Amino acid sequence: MVPKSSKIKHNNSSVNTIINGILAGEKLSIAKGISLVENNHRDKSDLISSIFSNIGKAYRIGITGPPGVGKSTLTLQLAKCFRSKDETIGIIAADPTSSFTGGALLGDRIRMNELFNDNDVFIRSMATRGSLGGLADSATEAGDILDASGKSIIFFETVGTGQSELDIAEACDTVVLVLAPDLGDGIQALKAGFMEIADIIIINKSDREGAERTEVELQTALALREYNEWQIPVLQTSAINNEGIEQTVETIERHLSYLKVNKNLENNRAEQLTRRVRSIIRNLLNEAFWTDERLADLDKIQNVKSGSNRSPYMIAQKIIGDFIRH
Amino acid sequence: MVPKSSKIKHNNSSVNTIINGILAGEKLSIAKGISLVENNHRDKSDLISSIFSNIGKAYRIGITGPPGVGKSTLTLQLAKCFRSKDETIGIIAADPTSSFTGGALLGDRIRMNELFNDNDVFIRSMATRGSLGGLADSATEAGDILDASGKSIIFFETVGTGQSELDIAEACDTVVLVLAPDLGDGIQALKAGFMEIADIIIINKSDREGAERTEVELQTALALREYNEWQIPVLQTSAINNEGIEQTVETIERHLSYLKVNKNLENNRAEQLTRRVRSIIRNLLNEAFWTDERLADLDKIQNVKSGSNRSPYMIAQKIIGDFIRH
Repeated sequence: MVPKSSKIKHNNSSVNTIINGILAGEKLSIAKGISLVENNHRDKSDLISSIFSNIGKAYRIGITGPPGVGKSTLTLQLAKCFRSKDETIGIIAADPTSSFTGGALLGDRIRMNELFNDNDVFIRSMATRGSLGGLADSATEAGDILDASGKSIIFFETVGTGQSELDIAEACDTVVLVLAPDLGDGIQALKAGFMEIADIIIINKSDREGAERTEVELQTALALREYNEWQIPVLQTSAINNEGIEQTVETIERHLSYLKVNKNLENNRAEQLTRRVRSIIRNLLNEAFWTDERLADLDKIQNVKSGSNRSPYMIAQKIIGDFIRH
Repeated sequence: MVPKSSKIKHNNSSVNTIINGILAGEKLSIAKGISLVENNHRDKSDLISSIFSNIGKAYRIGITGPPGVGKSTLTLQLAKCFRSKDETIGIIAADPTSSFTGGALLGDRIRMNELFNDNDVFIRSMATRGSLGGLADSATEAGDILDASGKSIIFFETVGTGQSELDIAEACDTVVLVLAPDLGDGIQALKAGFMEIADIIIINKSDREGAERTEVELQTALALREYNEWQIPVLQTSAINNEGIEQTVETIERHLSYLKVNKNLENNRAEQLTRRVRSIIRNLLNEAFWTDERLADLDKIQNVKSGSNRSPYMIAQKIIGDFIRH
């Protein structure tokens, strides 16, 4: 169900102020812009179109994996490391179990104060449930805003099992899959589900028992895959102890170089643009279709006792009527 | 991106054979019918419409929770318990980390042979990635087929973090959230994400350390919620040892009685029907829009160097042209 866009219309001057603020890298405007996107505001398309010529310079990194493996802490450490190389940072947490959202990061939060107070770092968690414009679209557009604001590295934290979360990963240049040694029986199954989207695999919490065994298992599973130009590296980190972070950053940079040399960066981004166009068209068609009259038809159907036995296909066909023949 | 339906058309006699077989409860026809649905076959809508007057008698139970908590084993034990009460069982595993899919259940599989060889039990795992008709729609329609075949209890196993997985849970009458005591730092965050869809919470693997503490934490969190007629019960089970299964089945039955008394069952199902109609219409609109000509337009755009700087909204608007004004 695609909801209608929010009815409240910012006046043009306020949207222009937001756009100019974003392009100037101002935190408040970035935050307001992301809220427009998140609320599926009717000025959203104008906003994205206005900043679009300033987009494409940022490098987008997906950080995905099951809950509890330390994705948020790892993201913060990677951000700190990139920041020390004069990169500017955006972080979008589109993960209902993210510590950015859940507050479990409190201890880290204090330790990470330097990052939170840095004007060249922007951190935002996004509503993942009932996201009005669709989670993947909203996260990607939030990334556009950060990109246009001049951030050079943008992280997307997702939990990575659902379709929207996979769509976010697909909208990234590089996908880092984070696992932990102590996942127990889950890991066998998890590997199967996540591995096909990963460019780099991290075993975080490497100080815990089983890290070596997990690495061997993963390397074995990877060796069975079809030959690919990019061999998926497996690294161990202990994000909380700041171990393995430098090597991870170097590996991410190596993947970016690989993408650039092989024109994969350009091709992937062209495919991403196509997917975005298709998604926007799907939403536009749906919004245009659901006029007040048709919504009333649908309401009537819901109020009929379920004994009528008409299948949802028959009901849909009746409501669609001759719309599709145009 | 909604893919086009499969081009291969079964001849009518073969679809009719499948329909008659489903209504007669034949395993092979049920399996063929679910494949039609899963492959988004063009006869899918006829199939569902033909069996729809035989749908509505089954009770649909969602089993959701993070990977590794033992959802598959719990589902099998619940199925065995319901079976001993002369219920007939369908199980749909729409979970990429499911043991039904991943094979980790091998030990259980041997122990559970009586269930697998029972003619009144049908177990099916569904492709969760790139599911052609959308995961939630396919799973729900697979449930319709099992319902029409005469199964009285249908389980849906999902991992429950993504939107499609939540949509499956919403298509169930009762949702059982399964957790484990040893989830570590993940649990705090997980609770926040899953709790709003749960009707019953199970702490499985209760023989492990921390089960009591987890129960106290959950009860505390639940006590902070708004008052609701249905108080979410928290139970401990050890599915692998067949402990707590009877009580869980009784609690599920108590929830069903609650739903019936309060007309919630009827109202929920009416809302589910509305959501299904909306989803079908969204797919129909999208399929009708993407003619070969428009797909060619989109291809052209992808081949233009990304320097053109047109935003996806501008491209979408151009391709949509005057379609929407009709």
